[in-house]
Amino acid sequence: MERKWEAMEAIFKPKAVAVIGASDNPGKLGSHVMRSLIEGRYPGKIFPVNPGKEEILGIKAYPSLLQTPECVDLSIIVLPAESVPKTFQECREKGVKGIVLITAGFKEIEDKRGETLQQEITELANQFGMKVIGPNTFGVVNLHLPINASFTPEFSSVEKGEIAFVSQSGGMSHLMGFLSMTSQVGFSKIIGLGNRCNVDFDDMVEYLTDDPQTKVVALYMEGMDHPRRLMEVAERAKGKKPILSYKVGRSSTGDQASQFHTGSLAGKHEVYGGAFKQAGILMVQSSEELLDTSKALAISPLPEGSCVAVLSGQAGPGMAACDVCETEGLSIPPFSSKTQQKVETLLPPLAIRTNPIDMGPAWYDSEAIEGIVHSVLEDKKIDAVILCIMFASANRASVGILADLLLQSQEKKPVVCCLSAPRGIWDEEIKRLEASGIPNFPTPERAARVLANLVRYKKLRSEYNE
Amino acid sequence: MERKWEAMEAIFKPKAVAVIGASDNPGKLGSHVMRSLIEGRYPGKIFPVNPGKEEILGIKAYPSLLQTPECVDLSIIVLPAESVPKTFQECREKGVKGIVLITAGFKEIEDKRGETLQQEITELANQFGMKVIGPNTFGVVNLHLPINASFTPEFSSVEKGEIAFVSQSGGMSHLMGFLSMTSQVGFSKIIGLGNRCNVDFDDMVEYLTDDPQTKVVALYMEGMDHPRRLMEVAERAKGKKPILSYKVGRSSTGDQASQFHTGSLAGKHEVYGGAFKQAGILMVQSSEELLDTSKALAISPLPEGSCVAVLSGQAGPGMAACDVCETEGLSIPPFSSKTQQKVETLLPPLAIRTNPIDMGPAWYDSEAIEGIVHSVLEDKKIDAVILCIMFASANRASVGILADLLLQSQEKKPVVCCLSAPRGIWDEEIKRLEASGIPNFPTPERAARVLANLVRYKKLRSEYNE
Repeated sequence: MERKWEAMEAIFKPKAVAVIGASDNPGKLGSHVMRSLIEGRYPGKIFPVNPGKEEILGIKAYPSLLQTPECVDLSIIVLPAESVPKTFQECREKGVKGIVLITAGFKEIEDKRGETLQQEITELANQFGMKVIGPNTFGVVNLHLPINASFTPEFSSVEKGEIAFVSQSGGMSHLMGFLSMTSQVGFSKIIGLGNRCNVDFDDMVEYLTDDPQTKVVALYMEGMDHPRRLMEVAERAKGKKPILSYKVGRSSTGDQASQFHTGSLAGKHEVYGGAFKQAGILMVQSSEELLDTSKALAISPLPEGSCVAVLSGQAGPGMAACDVCETEGLSIPPFSSKTQQKVETLLPPLAIRTNPIDMGPAWYDSEAIEGIVHSVLEDKKIDAVILCIMFASANRASVGILADLLLQSQEKKPVVCCLSAPRGIWDEEIKRLEASGIPNFPTPERAARVLANLVRYKKLRSEYNE
Repeated sequence: MERKWEAMEAIFKPKAVAVIGASDNPGKLGSHVMRSLIEGRYPGKIFPVNPGKEEILGIKAYPSLLQTPECVDLSIIVLPAESVPKTFQECREKGVKGIVLITAGFKEIEDKRGETLQQEITELANQFGMKVIGPNTFGVVNLHLPINASFTPEFSSVEKGEIAFVSQSGGMSHLMGFLSMTSQVGFSKIIGLGNRCNVDFDDMVEYLTDDPQTKVVALYMEGMDHPRRLMEVAERAKGKKPILSYKVGRSSTGDQASQFHTGSLAGKHEVYGGAFKQAGILMVQSSEELLDTSKALAISPLPEGSCVAVLSGQAGPGMAACDVCETEGLSIPPFSSKTQQKVETLLPPLAIRTNPIDMGPAWYDSEAIEGIVHSVLEDKKIDAVILCIMFASANRASVGILADLLLQSQEKKPVVCCLSAPRGIWDEEIKRLEASGIPNFPTPERAARVLANLVRYKKLRSEYNE
């Protein structure tokens, strides 16, 4: 266990990294890996290894790993598949503990030799006490060190945050990274498991459960080799941090495709559904939902129940949110009579004053907004709030007022927002709210779906805490 | 009919506009309306009407509408509700044909007097041959003239395009406008119907069916007063241009809220569903889906059937697209043996070579990509293509190559994309593709859902062309 942790730490927090197969030819993955480390401002030592070069991208290169002058914790390997066993031997000699094996051509190819080769290197790695991310991976990124040990330098532009994304697909990791750049979402780590030769979902979830920089673990899965162990590890994480999973292969075609992709059968979707629920893993149905829900779980308190108040600046978006709430099993109950009376004294009879409230007529009256939001948050019949306001010149100030109010509130109920405006108008207010645990989403429907997932997660967890 | 068309043209293409209740006080809606016209570069004459002002925002003001020196086609009214009947009288005297009545306080309020007042002004408008957008509306925007006749100057930043958005909710119009700003979607017109005193969905769909600047009509609905007439009008539009509807009020709470919001019962969702289908109106389930599907319908050819090829640069996103396709009733069939043979000669046996194809191993080989895409597009078993590529430094050039290829293709099959990259990297290529009828979406799931909607729309239309 100690030794395993040490090897994982070597992958995510290395003091020195060797790039075996480093290159300065932009047509080679070895050059992209070098750029990722350099442009990503990795603070440790970088040792490019390439027998034909004295220097790569301004850094002294070495003809072999064994000739590098210092200890190396992590080797990133971008050599052809057949030379990997020999390289593993050298890594052992050098005392390397962590490997990121970008090289493809193992279990995922049609040729049986790929699988044999993968067995061979897995046995070597196990024997040498090395942990291997891959083969057939884009790499790993730890935004807190920072280290971008991948072939995509652009991952270094992803914001630092508290969500770890663990993926069986490099494509899905890139998608999530790029989506996050326009969604104010930050990641602690982005990890491409590839063919999972000796680091599978279970190992990674186990490691991340104890990782202080990770609050939420988001998984993208196609298939699994050790489902039972994953469930055990996930059950141990329950109450510590949320684990979500987006699993594809619901369709028969996707299921077949998975087999080829990373060499594992996706298996019956329903079977996974039941097992995940038991283990406290929250399942979601799309990449967007995975990102949205992870963002909320990283910052928001959890609701005590499923009773929601919908407060909107305009009725339409509030109604759209209500539709999703009801479809997803949330309830939009009447307020307590105390709250209802308060709302009626504050709002003129010009719009909806029951739940959902249309606060439109109150925009010019910050005291009224304050009063309404206060009473609704304090209402014991209400577990959570959805707040939807679409910008119009006349309500520009409203979100600032609401932000002040929400940030002062002592109530620890989740508030999920859809505050929508052209770029630049409410950016600061939204940033303030998100920094204090109140997430914002681009549409009322997405905000409502996220809240439904917070409720589902709370239930999953409570059932298992009993 | 002639007269009605004339009144609608006065609303969307006025040569001169009066703003009755114009103001330079930023706390008043009348000032926002003035800014919308001025900052939106309305090319006609603007006559601010306000008895207390000689000039408003640099434009000569008049004490009353009757004292304005020239013909006025459109009056935008932002006076208190009780003065509206008298203002309508003046509009008739002046020969005004179109009214945008922003003023609230009519059918939507709890006080019965609101409904009475709305009846009164509706009778006046009908008697005077005037068409009224509103009351209780944010206004209308025609991006082609351009005229921003709304209280939100920011609508002028929406891109000009070929989708008309007709909404019962100002909030939803603002949401769609703001979403469009980050989604490369353009609108021809954005119309807030408000309480629909004598311009309802049916009138608007009828007008837009003959509007040469509109290719797609997107509706956001809560309830309807003349459902039968809408269905008749929609049936007449079938084959001419697509009509989509996002209708809220699926939930009981939303349904109640609708009654208050614009004074009409939302009614049973299922009843609408059947009627819409009969009339050839495509129903969607969220604001995002409405925008995405409208964008595709505005530019893409329609598929002849529901057989889809999924081509992806990385297996994961392709599998996510497959899942949505199958859930939505699309089929992902095997290729013809000719296509399959071709693919196998072009792609090494390193990844999935059946449908869905993982083109990953071909990135360095533009001839291979060209060959695969060509054969798949020509395959008679395939009606449409979903193309998913996530950027990585190593495949930067691929989208340019694919764009050239797709734009040269003679096949008129729909191709729907998820090409995802950090901002700035593929923007030009995506713009070129979209300009030629190949839309791009942020996630593979959204791309697949849009394609499913194209198939559904094609079916709806075909059933009614028979």
